[in-house]
Amino acid sequence: MSGDTFLAVDWGTTNRRAYLIDKGRVVTAGSDEMGTLSVPPGGFPDSVATLRQRNGGVPLLLAGMVGSNRGWRDAGYVAAPARLEDLASALVVPGEEVAIVPGVCRDAQGRQDVMRGEEVQLLGAVAAGSVPGDALLCQPGTHSKWALMREGAIADFTTAMTGEMFALLKGHALIGSEMVGEVDADDDFRSGVAASSEGDLLARLFGVRAASVLGRRAPGKAAAYVSGLLIGSDCRARLQPGESVYLLADGLLARLYSAAIEGVGGKAIVVDSHAAFVSGITRIWNMKP
Amino acid sequence: MSGDTFLAVDWGTTNRRAYLIDKGRVVTAGSDEMGTLSVPPGGFPDSVATLRQRNGGVPLLLAGMVGSNRGWRDAGYVAAPARLEDLASALVVPGEEVAIVPGVCRDAQGRQDVMRGEEVQLLGAVAAGSVPGDALLCQPGTHSKWALMREGAIADFTTAMTGEMFALLKGHALIGSEMVGEVDADDDFRSGVAASSEGDLLARLFGVRAASVLGRRAPGKAAAYVSGLLIGSDCRARLQPGESVYLLADGLLARLYSAAIEGVGGKAIVVDSHAAFVSGITRIWNMKP
Repeated sequence: MSGDTFLAVDWGTTNRRAYLIDKGRVVTAGSDEMGTLSVPPGGFPDSVATLRQRNGGVPLLLAGMVGSNRGWRDAGYVAAPARLEDLASALVVPGEEVAIVPGVCRDAQGRQDVMRGEEVQLLGAVAAGSVPGDALLCQPGTHSKWALMREGAIADFTTAMTGEMFALLKGHALIGSEMVGEVDADDDFRSGVAASSEGDLLARLFGVRAASVLGRRAPGKAAAYVSGLLIGSDCRARLQPGESVYLLADGLLARLYSAAIEGVGGKAIVVDSHAAFVSGITRIWNMKP
Repeated sequence: MSGDTFLAVDWGTTNRRAYLIDKGRVVTAGSDEMGTLSVPPGGFPDSVATLRQRNGGVPLLLAGMVGSNRGWRDAGYVAAPARLEDLASALVVPGEEVAIVPGVCRDAQGRQDVMRGEEVQLLGAVAAGSVPGDALLCQPGTHSKWALMREGAIADFTTAMTGEMFALLKGHALIGSEMVGEVDADDDFRSGVAASSEGDLLARLFGVRAASVLGRRAPGKAAAYVSGLLIGSDCRARLQPGESVYLLADGLLARLYSAAIEGVGGKAIVVDSHAAFVSGITRIWNMKP
C-alpha cells in the first residue's frame, strides 16, 4: 500500500461512511447502511472488493467495528495512553492493499473500557488543531465516549450506555408507553437534566410512570424528560462545573449534549466529527510502515 | 359485608394470593397465577364469584393491582401520610360483599410516586408490632418500594425500577448476553454493590461489556455483578450509613437486599411480608364502615 490516494472507511455496526482521499483532501464521500451486521458470514472480501472497484482500485484503510471480533478481522486494542503513531504501527492487514486500524483499551484500578472507531476522530480532532492537546472530548451516541486527552494522546476514557438505555426504556420498559413525543433541547429535556442532580436514576425513571398516573406530566413530554435525565446523568458523572467539553457531534445529539453540559455547569464547544475522522485517518495513512 | 370471616386477596399483575381469615387467624392460604393481566376483559365478576364459591361464599377484601385502572375498578389513591384508617374509609365497592383497598400516592416538591398493594403490608407490619412506628421499610421487587413510617403512618415513599431494570438489561441490552450465571449474595454481587459507590450506573453497565472483551471477568459472573450494581445503587440512594432497614422479603431477594444494605453501611432486619399483609388487611376489615 502506498501512494497519495486511498479510500478511508468508518465502518460501524449499522452504517459505513467512505471518503476517497487524495493528498489529504476529500475527493468524494458517501455513506450507506452496509454496517458490519449487514455483511453475511465470509462476505467481507467481496464487500471490500466492490468498494475498491467503485473507487478506481485504490487501497483501503478501515476503522471501526469492522476490526472487532464480530467484524472482518479482530484488530485488537492499543492500550491508553494512545497516539496516532501507536495506531499506525499496529495496523492489521487482512488482505492485499487493505488495512484495519486497531481500537484503544484502558484497564486499570478495576475499571475496563474499550473503543473502536472513535479513536481516529479523537486523535484527528487534536491533530487538526480543532481541539487542544489537553482537553475533555465527548462523542455522544448509543455508547457515549468521553475521552481525556493529555499532550495529544488519548490518556483515559469512559463509555456510558446512554443512548442504548434510552432505546431500551422506550422499547421495552413499563414507562416505554409514556415515552412519546419529540425529543429536543427544550424545557422538558432541561427538567430531566435538573432531576439528574439527585443521582437517583432508578427512582426518577419510575417517577415518569407516577407523574403520568397522577396527571402531573402532559402526554408527549416524557420522552424529552427521560432523555434529559439520562444525558444529564452521563454529563454530571464526567464533568466538573466550569469545565469545557469538545463535542464531536452534530444535529440533535449536539443540541442535546450542549444543553445538558451547560445544564450541569460546563461549557460545550461543538467540533466537526467528519473532518476529525478525515484528519486522523489521513495521518495514520501517512505514518503507516 | 360483615362477620368475622372473609377472604383477603393480594391481587397483583402476575400472581394473586388469597387468605381465608377467621377472627384474625389464617384458616387457609394459597396462591395462583391469575394476576390481573390473566383476567379477560369484563372477567373480574366471574373470577371473584369463583373465588368466593371455593371459600364457602364469604365476603372478599381485595388489595393490589386489581384496584388499578388496568384492573377491575380504579380504587384511587389516598395521599400520604396514610394510615390504616384512611385506607378503610376509602374502600371502593365494585359489587356485593366485595371491596377494594385504595393505593397511596405522594405528590410534593416536584416528585410523584404511587403504590398499590404494598400499603397493606407496610401498615400491617407496624400494626403487628414487627416494625416500630418510626422506621424505614423496604419491599424489594420489580419496582422496589422504600417507605418512611412516622408515628405508624406511611409518611413518604420512593419507588425504584430496580428489578425491572435488571430484566430489561438481561433481556434486551448489549450486555444481556454477558449476564449469565446464578445471582446470589456472593463476591460478584458484593463487587457490584461496591462499584455502585461511584454513582455512575450508565458507565459501569457498559464496563460489563468491556470487562468481558478484555477477559477481566469470568463467564457466569456478570449477572450477579449487575444485580449488585443495581441493588447497590438503589440502597445507596435511600440509606444513611448506620441506618436500619426493615426488609419485607424472603428467599433470594431478602439475601440480596440484606447484603447490599450491609454493603452500604446499613443494617437489615428481615420481616415476614405475608404475616404483615394478614395483619394489615384484617385491621382494615375490622375498621371498614
